[in-house]
Amino acid sequence: MRFIVTLMSVMVSVMSFAHAANDDKVYTLRLATTWAEQVPFLGTAPATLAQTVETMSNGRLKIKIDSPNKHKSPFGVMDMVKAGQYDLAYTASYYYKGKDYKLVFFTTVPFGMLISEQYAWYNHGGGKELAEKVYSAHGLISYPMGTTGMQMGGWFKKEIKSLADLKGLKFRIPGQGGEVMAKLGVNAMSTPPGELYTALERNTIDAVEWISPVFDFSMGFHKLANYYYTGWQEPASEIQMLANKKKIEALPADLRAILEVAIRSVGSQLMEQATHANAEAWANIAKEYPNVKVQQFPSDVMAALKKAAHEIEDEQAAKDPVFKEILESQRAYLTKVRPWTLMGEYGYLKQLEK
Amino acid sequence: MRFIVTLMSVMVSVMSFAHAANDDKVYTLRLATTWAEQVPFLGTAPATLAQTVETMSNGRLKIKIDSPNKHKSPFGVMDMVKAGQYDLAYTASYYYKGKDYKLVFFTTVPFGMLISEQYAWYNHGGGKELAEKVYSAHGLISYPMGTTGMQMGGWFKKEIKSLADLKGLKFRIPGQGGEVMAKLGVNAMSTPPGELYTALERNTIDAVEWISPVFDFSMGFHKLANYYYTGWQEPASEIQMLANKKKIEALPADLRAILEVAIRSVGSQLMEQATHANAEAWANIAKEYPNVKVQQFPSDVMAALKKAAHEIEDEQAAKDPVFKEILESQRAYLTKVRPWTLMGEYGYLKQLEK
Repeated sequence: MRFIVTLMSVMVSVMSFAHAANDDKVYTLRLATTWAEQVPFLGTAPATLAQTVETMSNGRLKIKIDSPNKHKSPFGVMDMVKAGQYDLAYTASYYYKGKDYKLVFFTTVPFGMLISEQYAWYNHGGGKELAEKVYSAHGLISYPMGTTGMQMGGWFKKEIKSLADLKGLKFRIPGQGGEVMAKLGVNAMSTPPGELYTALERNTIDAVEWISPVFDFSMGFHKLANYYYTGWQEPASEIQMLANKKKIEALPADLRAILEVAIRSVGSQLMEQATHANAEAWANIAKEYPNVKVQQFPSDVMAALKKAAHEIEDEQAAKDPVFKEILESQRAYLTKVRPWTLMGEYGYLKQLEK
Repeated sequence: MRFIVTLMSVMVSVMSFAHAANDDKVYTLRLATTWAEQVPFLGTAPATLAQTVETMSNGRLKIKIDSPNKHKSPFGVMDMVKAGQYDLAYTASYYYKGKDYKLVFFTTVPFGMLISEQYAWYNHGGGKELAEKVYSAHGLISYPMGTTGMQMGGWFKKEIKSLADLKGLKFRIPGQGGEVMAKLGVNAMSTPPGELYTALERNTIDAVEWISPVFDFSMGFHKLANYYYTGWQEPASEIQMLANKKKIEALPADLRAILEVAIRSVGSQLMEQATHANAEAWANIAKEYPNVKVQQFPSDVMAALKKAAHEIEDEQAAKDPVFKEILESQRAYLTKVRPWTLMGEYGYLKQLEK
């Protein structure tokens, strides 16, 4: 009997030790994505994330992914996470500017920071604290998760030689870029993606802004338009994971850390994939379509675009003090960080062009 | 007796379950660093890594850090990991070019890739496979771990107006940059860090290459030299964690993943810190010392430096077929990726200067 008691006490201590060292409960997070798996590199990041957290947690943290084919609402994922239908949304904040305009600052703004500058602002220039202020009001936590890279300025059939060439131009450009272009007299359109090629072919539109070489290549715009303009409207294009705050706070500390570190890691992979995929796609376009020219907008156009972009921001700032606070924070940080960008990497590239 | 047997079998199954779900053994990795904790941002990354893996593993993976104050050999850390005295070395490969010249490719080379380009090459252009070939011969695994950012070209007391101004110039520039400068008739010196300020003050040296604003600021060179040249010799400056291969392979799969993902995550933090710290330091220098000018080398100097750098690489390639293989891989990738860099982020910045 004494032996049995000893055995039982050993058994109990083994069980409680196993429990203390590792809560064996399996946590499953439901993730809704804006982009389908088929979208180049952007589409596969959630599966990489799921596999990474599963391995690191030894199966204790699982992520169940629903693509837009399943949930049917690519631009409704933020609301679904707010409502608790999903725990995570893989998306970009600026899609929700109709609900809260200041969300744009956590994706990108016209004439804003490059991704390296924006990440430095986020983690060392007060950006994270401002994000917490904005997202906690929505019951969310936002995690930066890489970028698709610099967005190009669009494909034009005719060269833009001055501001006058923009008047009445039928240009498909949605979002903030479209708002800015409209102020310059452009007929800014939001033709649906599926109709773009035909619209450009039939001159229903004169120009089209899409994304960057890897995404543009599959659309075939280079077959119809020779002028490929450098970008100004989306210099950071930051991707995010939006999470239900309560759900994250209910995770054990080790699993929360595993999730957060994995998001950062997959985000850094996304940036490398963007660089590689865009480089490959552009090399293919340049080789197969030597008529395509990379072009820059003339200085009067650039000055007018910048002025219009700042006016739109200032109008919003007058309506919303938190928008104003973030705008001022980003502008001040840009003033500090840009000189380093220009003398560092840009200085190297400029010196090489001599 | 039957009861005891049942109990014992339950106990055994509980114990084996605990083992399967979670090997409770604590693994401790011994890490030797090249840089002391006091070095801005670079010095604190190992502690961040240790804390990250400890939290993610719920205490099952620990990293014990020894700084150069302890191990006394900042540039011996690779050898100590090879010999098994340490498990991890936080360092940069190019310090070991005397032992194996091809290690430079995994840090940076003159006129080479920017960090974004180099990471794309590493993970999507065959770099990782080449690194495995090189490091496994040393019994090591290499993990990229961020960057200190673009390295500046150095502080000069007099402006460099042409190639002739370099002849006989007493310029403190070590490493590959020094080899290249020497080919152009520069008296390339490797004055010890502690003597640099006095040497520049007393004209024992005419110019000094150190790192970038955050590191240079504390050295005080801006008080003695007005020309701060943009860089060409270390455009990527990649930091690495070198690991003892056998030790990593002996880790359970979850802990290995935790370590590897944490290294990537801390590496991405390092890049943001580099951007922020350099931006801040430069803003301070520019404000307090308005006489300091950011300068670019003239075109004849750039052409001669590039030619000399390529000659040195070609000489090494003739001696070592694996060096040749990596050189050709990097050159081919650079030819593909650079046009995208130039039309993407560089195109944006260039357009803004108009």
